[in-house]
Amino acid sequence: MLTIADQTFSSRLFTGTGKFSSAKEMESALIASASELVTVALKRVDLKGKDDDILHHLKYPHINLLPNTSGVRNAKQAIFAAQLAREALETNWIKLEIHPDPKYLMPDPIETLKATEELVKLGFVVLPYIHADPVLCKRLEDVGTAAVMPLGSPIGSNKGLRTIDFLEIIISQSRVPVIIDAGIGAPSDAAKAMEIGADAVLVNTAIAIAKDPTNMAIAFKMAVEAGRMAFESKLGAQTHYAAASSPLTVFLDEEF
Amino acid sequence: MLTIADQTFSSRLFTGTGKFSSAKEMESALIASASELVTVALKRVDLKGKDDDILHHLKYPHINLLPNTSGVRNAKQAIFAAQLAREALETNWIKLEIHPDPKYLMPDPIETLKATEELVKLGFVVLPYIHADPVLCKRLEDVGTAAVMPLGSPIGSNKGLRTIDFLEIIISQSRVPVIIDAGIGAPSDAAKAMEIGADAVLVNTAIAIAKDPTNMAIAFKMAVEAGRMAFESKLGAQTHYAAASSPLTVFLDEEF
Amino acid sequence: MLTIADQTFSSRLFTGTGKFSSAKEMESALIASASELVTVALKRVDLKGKDDDILHHLKYPHINLLPNTSGVRNAKQAIFAAQLAREALETNWIKLEIHPDPKYLMPDPIETLKATEELVKLGFVVLPYIHADPVLCKRLEDVGTAAVMPLGSPIGSNKGLRTIDFLEIIISQSRVPVIIDAGIGAPSDAAKAMEIGADAVLVNTAIAIAKDPTNMAIAFKMAVEAGRMAFESKLGAQTHYAAASSPLTVFLDEEF
Amino acid sequence: MLTIADQTFSSRLFTGTGKFSSAKEMESALIASASELVTVALKRVDLKGKDDDILHHLKYPHINLLPNTSGVRNAKQAIFAAQLAREALETNWIKLEIHPDPKYLMPDPIETLKATEELVKLGFVVLPYIHADPVLCKRLEDVGTAAVMPLGSPIGSNKGLRTIDFLEIIISQSRVPVIIDAGIGAPSDAAKAMEIGADAVLVNTAIAIAKDPTNMAIAFKMAVEAGRMAFESKLGAQTHYAAASSPLTVFLDEEF
Repeated sequence: MLTIADQTFSSRLFTGTGKFSSAKEMESALIASASELVTVALKRVDLKGKDDDILHHLKYPHINLLPNTSGVRNAKQAIFAAQLAREALETNWIKLEIHPDPKYLMPDPIETLKATEELVKLGFVVLPYIHADPVLCKRLEDVGTAAVMPLGSPIGSNKGLRTIDFLEIIISQSRVPVIIDAGIGAPSDAAKAMEIGADAVLVNTAIAIAKDPTNMAIAFKMAVEAGRMAFESKLGAQTHYAAASSPLTVFLDEEF
Repeated sequence: MLTIADQTFSSRLFTGTGKFSSAKEMESALIASASELVTVALKRVDLKGKDDDILHHLKYPHINLLPNTSGVRNAKQAIFAAQLAREALETNWIKLEIHPDPKYLMPDPIETLKATEELVKLGFVVLPYIHADPVLCKRLEDVGTAAVMPLGSPIGSNKGLRTIDFLEIIISQSRVPVIIDAGIGAPSDAAKAMEIGADAVLVNTAIAIAKDPTNMAIAFKMAVEAGRMAFESKLGAQTHYAAASSPLTVFLDEEF
Repeated sequence: MLTIADQTFSSRLFTGTGKFSSAKEMESALIASASELVTVALKRVDLKGKDDDILHHLKYPHINLLPNTSGVRNAKQAIFAAQLAREALETNWIKLEIHPDPKYLMPDPIETLKATEELVKLGFVVLPYIHADPVLCKRLEDVGTAAVMPLGSPIGSNKGLRTIDFLEIIISQSRVPVIIDAGIGAPSDAAKAMEIGADAVLVNTAIAIAKDPTNMAIAFKMAVEAGRMAFESKLGAQTHYAAASSPLTVFLDEEF
Repeated sequence: MLTIADQTFSSRLFTGTGKFSSAKEMESALIASASELVTVALKRVDLKGKDDDILHHLKYPHINLLPNTSGVRNAKQAIFAAQLAREALETNWIKLEIHPDPKYLMPDPIETLKATEELVKLGFVVLPYIHADPVLCKRLEDVGTAAVMPLGSPIGSNKGLRTIDFLEIIISQSRVPVIIDAGIGAPSDAAKAMEIGADAVLVNTAIAIAKDPTNMAIAFKMAVEAGRMAFESKLGAQTHYAAASSPLTVFLDEEF
């Protein structure tokens, strides 16, 4: 079981709600994923209405909503967005995303640390999306972050774990859960993240843009479980010289 | 369902029997893997005795034995070994492994083609272990191979799919099942092999040397299923520019 | 020609002075490298003495010293160190290195930005060593950094350009020179850095720990020039399908 | 100095003549490369005429022609082509290329071994283009090949050293020169090939399709020299933990 702040999770697969071709398809995929933490962009939530489409499709007892601040560009905007989200969704959890860059959506380390510190003081459970920067992770810990969410590769790129050398350092040093957040493009990437010891992964694009999102969600669910189980069962080391699985005998020598 | 020759398989995870710390542990892991095709080195089989240890632990209705010729160094030895195996194990299936090199156990393309051609004529269902050589695969097809088993990386190295560029070519051209055979070191590697369209994988070392082989076998089982499901559900492409899963809005602009 | 602040450089290979087995060997290698910017740890400089060994070996007209703040752990210490260096070495150039972590020596983004801003105000030409973080690079530009020095992989690891996906983003966006600073372990890594458009590389460990540092320095010199020339001569794209360099004809068909 | 058969070479950069936009441009680039072994497709040679364009541009004392059999699909065709080439170009050197596959141009291991054996008996100096197959390399040695030319990645793909794990095995075992033949897409790839101990590289597409082929040829020339020098000067190992080039002191501790 994974624990973040005061919440425990059976599933280590977190998901997002963007890019699905319909809300119906999104609902089907997210249910299939068994994900218990689903991030939703504040903008998608109808802050005034009652029948907001996305929220309507996410009303399941096992699903915890994780509003995100996508679209904000500095700490001040992020804090305001978090407060709006808290009121609208009645949760003090916030996925902090501050990316001033509209092309690659890379996160801002300075504003993210500043906003995390402030939001923690305001009583939020903060999960910041960050570059795979080991020192920033430690600094976020120091100001009370609930977890860290380093990226595997640029958001939406499906490139997988291009930052793996740094993710391994982050995992080895972290006192809070490490959730790999962006770039995971295939179940094998999710499995790999879990194998190196990540606590969870967040997957959105790769599920949403698959030809069959619901089955892809199931594939990710299994891959995350497989990777976690492999981590716990301890993989052997890579070796340089080959070593046969089958005995290397020359048992027929005498006969030829 | 995967079909090789006249046999269908529910599981796309094939396994081996080497390197386990005990026959008991091997049995437990292989049952957990749900593998229906298990390769066994002829040398390990007591060709005369009745109470051979390994075979005793593999007597399950769902398990098909796949004797291998590990230890032979040329076509002539391989054919002799295959005939011994057919008598001893009462199967005409043979995993053809010809590796004259004792250090890296790399397979011999010339002897392998020669032995395949001969064994097919002798009524065998031949599954040859080979380098990830696209042209060799086509030539093996031409002489009636039942499948091809290209390596991902050197046997026992756990290095994963280092030959992926060539595996993709092989898969795109093959008319027989493609089984990735060596070097798969983690469930993520197995998932990746399936995602690119392999028909099955053969895993031995990574399960056998894990701290908990039985749970590792389960992890591989799930990863193979996840990878296959992802292949069938069609993954999206990698992209260079990032694209947010969440909408890239500037929704707070007017307020700041 | 590369220009940083008001200085032009013929060589795009910057070097360091650590880890050489002797000052004599260092001198020989650095001269062979033709490097015009050599970083030196403040600690190594005898701040009071006249006959400091390292400086004595670096007194060449073409060599510009670049004192670094290695060993400091926050902005305040860094600023103090920079001021000491300016007095001792009579240069207002400073390589800013702030790494609170003693194991991986990863740089601190927050303190680095803070110190850069302050040092620029104090009249320094600042070259900060940073993680390959595209947003941090833009923020450093905003406060007047003279260049950015993102890492390729952890200092001293010789792992090469593990951050290449992010280096490419940084290079495409930067208005100041981009110098790849850590992890470059072989001439091929340095060539690659230049091929993707880096303005310069800083190499130390790979030269210093080579069996023959002087020849290794020459190898790096040539590799940097080769990579830069390739960048300027524009490499062709990678392709998926093969395309023969030689004509794919079937010129013998009629005869066989 | 590199020796193949009875010939010594100062340059370890071999080149090809395909894909240049003009013969003039080809000549300029090949002279700039300082290459002493240049492969030419038999088809391009006007077997009857006197004023063949390509040959005319390659008449330099330091350039040895290496006719290749590109376009043949089996051993028989290859042997015939080699004999034609010997007559036409008055050289018994032949680059053996047998690729029945028109899409990826992957070489055929069986026909290549057969043709090599026959051609050696006929007095040829044979340089076969092959997949990076360590066992095939040994078998080619056994029949008298003058060198082996394993591919780095598919011809013309510019993907670099995708077969590096196998190239390292080949180099460690070979008694004849190892020339990396296909896929080298940038000077950094060529440098890397030399760093791991290859005896030479053959580059064609990457030079021919560059915007400035002549300068690209110079870049490759320098990169090959850099890589060879690095190999001879012995690179240090990669390490997992970082180790500072600069001393990791806490020299300012007492003051803050």
